[in-house]
Amino acid sequence: MRWIRYEADGGAAYGIVEGDDVAEVRGDPFAGYERTGAKRPFASVRLLVPVEPRTFYAAGLNYPEHAVAAANSRGEIPKLPKTANIGYRAVNALIADGETIVIPSDATERVQYEGEIVAVVGRPMKRVAEADVLSHLLGYTIGNDVSERTWQGEDTTLWRAKNTDTFAPMGPWIETDLDLDAAETIVRVNGAEKIRFPTNSMIFKIPHYLSRMSQYMTLHPGDVVWMGTEGKTENLKHGDTVEVEITGIGVLKNPVVREGA
Amino acid sequence: MRWIRYEADGGAAYGIVEGDDVAEVRGDPFAGYERTGAKRPFASVRLLVPVEPRTFYAAGLNYPEHAVAAANSRGEIPKLPKTANIGYRAVNALIADGETIVIPSDATERVQYEGEIVAVVGRPMKRVAEADVLSHLLGYTIGNDVSERTWQGEDTTLWRAKNTDTFAPMGPWIETDLDLDAAETIVRVNGAEKIRFPTNSMIFKIPHYLSRMSQYMTLHPGDVVWMGTEGKTENLKHGDTVEVEITGIGVLKNPVVREGA
Repeated sequence: MRWIRYEADGGAAYGIVEGDDVAEVRGDPFAGYERTGAKRPFASVRLLVPVEPRTFYAAGLNYPEHAVAAANSRGEIPKLPKTANIGYRAVNALIADGETIVIPSDATERVQYEGEIVAVVGRPMKRVAEADVLSHLLGYTIGNDVSERTWQGEDTTLWRAKNTDTFAPMGPWIETDLDLDAAETIVRVNGAEKIRFPTNSMIFKIPHYLSRMSQYMTLHPGDVVWMGTEGKTENLKHGDTVEVEITGIGVLKNPVVREGA
Repeated sequence: MRWIRYEADGGAAYGIVEGDDVAEVRGDPFAGYERTGAKRPFASVRLLVPVEPRTFYAAGLNYPEHAVAAANSRGEIPKLPKTANIGYRAVNALIADGETIVIPSDATERVQYEGEIVAVVGRPMKRVAEADVLSHLLGYTIGNDVSERTWQGEDTTLWRAKNTDTFAPMGPWIETDLDLDAAETIVRVNGAEKIRFPTNSMIFKIPHYLSRMSQYMTLHPGDVVWMGTEGKTENLKHGDTVEVEITGIGVLKNPVVREGA
């Protein structure tokens, strides 16, 4: 099932994608819903971020080649993380599929994509065993963890490197049925494929990460956990269009502009 | 004016503290409100966290003596921060005035208080000049940034050190009228004063911090920014009661238990 969140009557509504249509519902997939019986064409709706998380979690280095590439770019010896330590992002940075990534005028050229799978929590999780994690998820969506690498190196936190407004495209929808082991993540810039990797080739997989988080923290319905990216990443520039596809979910596509360009 | 958020009819309502009473309102202080004319005794309400932030921001080292004490405890040479780099916390950790701080059974003895003033955003802020920051706030509340120092040193992020459930007491209310320069922050454990410092003796003051954040990020109504603490901090143990007072705001008081103790 594919859940979208879309603009309706000036507010936000959830709907279920069925072919070229959206089945309308009352309620939402977290607190409960019922179908109204009405449909509208998918092409007629304006997509919103598929969920506004209560807390926006993000894993850091969680794929082997990206961990090596990140260390190399800093002139450091690559060292894989030994434990799963979750981080945080700011909700202000989220934008929906199709919305524009805006690079601030004082950013360097080193603004880069990071294609990521996003786990969307469906039911409260506290001290949940690894084997029970996936059944607590509503499903999965796609994130592009846009990063200004100079700020990432200079600042003591990731505040503007990864949380500048528009630096967190997420969508297009939440897919509830996904074969994680079969999924591939693909990043394209202006249609050219930049990287392709098995989505589930994480250092710490979703059941381990979220189970560990839940030992200390309650994960709430609607919380999202971005799971990290793989490989070396490249710069985005004014006029580019960046796509993150995860097979079995869909494509998250956003244009890029630079302020003042 | 003092805004409380309290449990009403199974949900949450805002009210205005007036002497021993709470004036009921329809709406809230962010989107707009009107008084209903009804009152109820303050003593009869159960306080909730005064706001559930869209994003929960927290400054790191932002007072000179705390920065020195933190460096000393790690055997490092003290170095004051040169720029204001905001960090993030998780909403799951928030508890209200009077609720219990629960130390997990696998935490060490080094679980410590940090008394902080909290700026509560009232109006959207993007690229707001320092001189205009305070007029964009709804007001101020009090936070206790409970920290497990061993985890803080070992983990690559602050995820469980500062975001374990119940590790972020916030309240008791939002005070809209405060003379920041006159305010003192006082921490007491079991009634004994542990530290007292001028609340506004920050390295980077609220106008500077929030103006800088707003150059890159939109601060939304209801977002909170915890401004850091001063001095050396001490351990909390099972059976303690910890109070953070900020003169002109009030007292945030929470009991402490250790799981399994």
